[in-house]
Amino acid sequence: MTDAAYPVTARTRVRRLPKRGVYDRDVVHAILDEALVCHIGTTVGGSPVVQPTLPWRIGEELFVHGSSKNGLFAALKDGTEACVTVTLLDGLVLARSAFHHSVNYRSVMVFGQARLVDDPAEKMAALKGMLDKFTPGRWDQMREPNATEMKATDVLAFPLVEVSAKLRSGPPVDDAEDYGLDIWAGVVPLSIVQGEPIPDPTKAP
Amino acid sequence: MTDAAYPVTARTRVRRLPKRGVYDRDVVHAILDEALVCHIGTTVGGSPVVQPTLPWRIGEELFVHGSSKNGLFAALKDGTEACVTVTLLDGLVLARSAFHHSVNYRSVMVFGQARLVDDPAEKMAALKGMLDKFTPGRWDQMREPNATEMKATDVLAFPLVEVSAKLRSGPPVDDAEDYGLDIWAGVVPLSIVQGEPIPDPTKAP
Repeated sequence: MTDAAYPVTARTRVRRLPKRGVYDRDVVHAILDEALVCHIGTTVGGSPVVQPTLPWRIGEELFVHGSSKNGLFAALKDGTEACVTVTLLDGLVLARSAFHHSVNYRSVMVFGQARLVDDPAEKMAALKGMLDKFTPGRWDQMREPNATEMKATDVLAFPLVEVSAKLRSGPPVDDAEDYGLDIWAGVVPLSIVQGEPIPDPTKAP
Repeated sequence: MTDAAYPVTARTRVRRLPKRGVYDRDVVHAILDEALVCHIGTTVGGSPVVQPTLPWRIGEELFVHGSSKNGLFAALKDGTEACVTVTLLDGLVLARSAFHHSVNYRSVMVFGQARLVDDPAEKMAALKGMLDKFTPGRWDQMREPNATEMKATDVLAFPLVEVSAKLRSGPPVDDAEDYGLDIWAGVVPLSIVQGEPIPDPTKAP
């Protein structure tokens, strides 16, 4: 049986505004499942590097993929510690004072080392999982990856062990004496929308 | 006179798909100016940490702000090297093969050390710059930060010196033999939209 919450560790304890910290698995899963992009941070040649890529979750692992020649992936495959962060912006919070302006957001941080997915069947299933998230239903129509393409692609999995979420929602919270100021306050919602699909104009040669 | 392009360094040279690398200042500025969130990666207590925050640019510096008690900011104030990355997602690229699925995006990576903005006038001007970006015109209406709030807020500036952008745009690029496959291919545009503002229901006490 799996606990309903991730254990809090020294790295995942939310220190600033701890009331915004959440360790509930369902909340973390929902944020990871909605995110179209994650930012992986690690150390490459002694220097911090933060690289964006698409994340997807299967069970208690967060998956990413990339070129097998990617420099950041090489560091991850060497077992370098990483932090993977996803951030969903839900709104601009406009307060009556500059200081209390804020953002409504849901973010997750995952700390740890990546596992290289090298079992061919698991790797293929993981790539299908990515397509199922970003373009549901397409996997069965598309040409599947061939051996050369599989070799050119690395799939890495981060275990969801040291994980925390941080959230803000709702209206601004101003100082009591500022509520009387004559200035509009509230939230401007933000969302990512898909536009009208643009068919590829390229025709078969 | 400023060069039109950032110099390429060992850290900013785009190695994977180098044709996607761009060092043009105007391109970099436009991406930074559109971004609502950046991800700052650095090392805190020996561990990589990637934290989201709002970025804004003034001239050749990228600014961020946060609590003066923030752990990641403490590391940055100590001069720890960082990488700040912004990523704009422009579309899902649906190809005829799984392998050539991609994403249209514009991203920027900034490497270097942060400068603490501690001159009071410069700090206030920088905070106004943030509001001017995210909620243009509000600064003159709002209550400005008081001394306590200014003390609770750190403003950091990353010099735009080691900087690169990476972009993908346009339709999928499939293998020649796949163009004949009977599957829809093209781009699903993505954009961030602002919804109808929600007034704060809280009334003056």
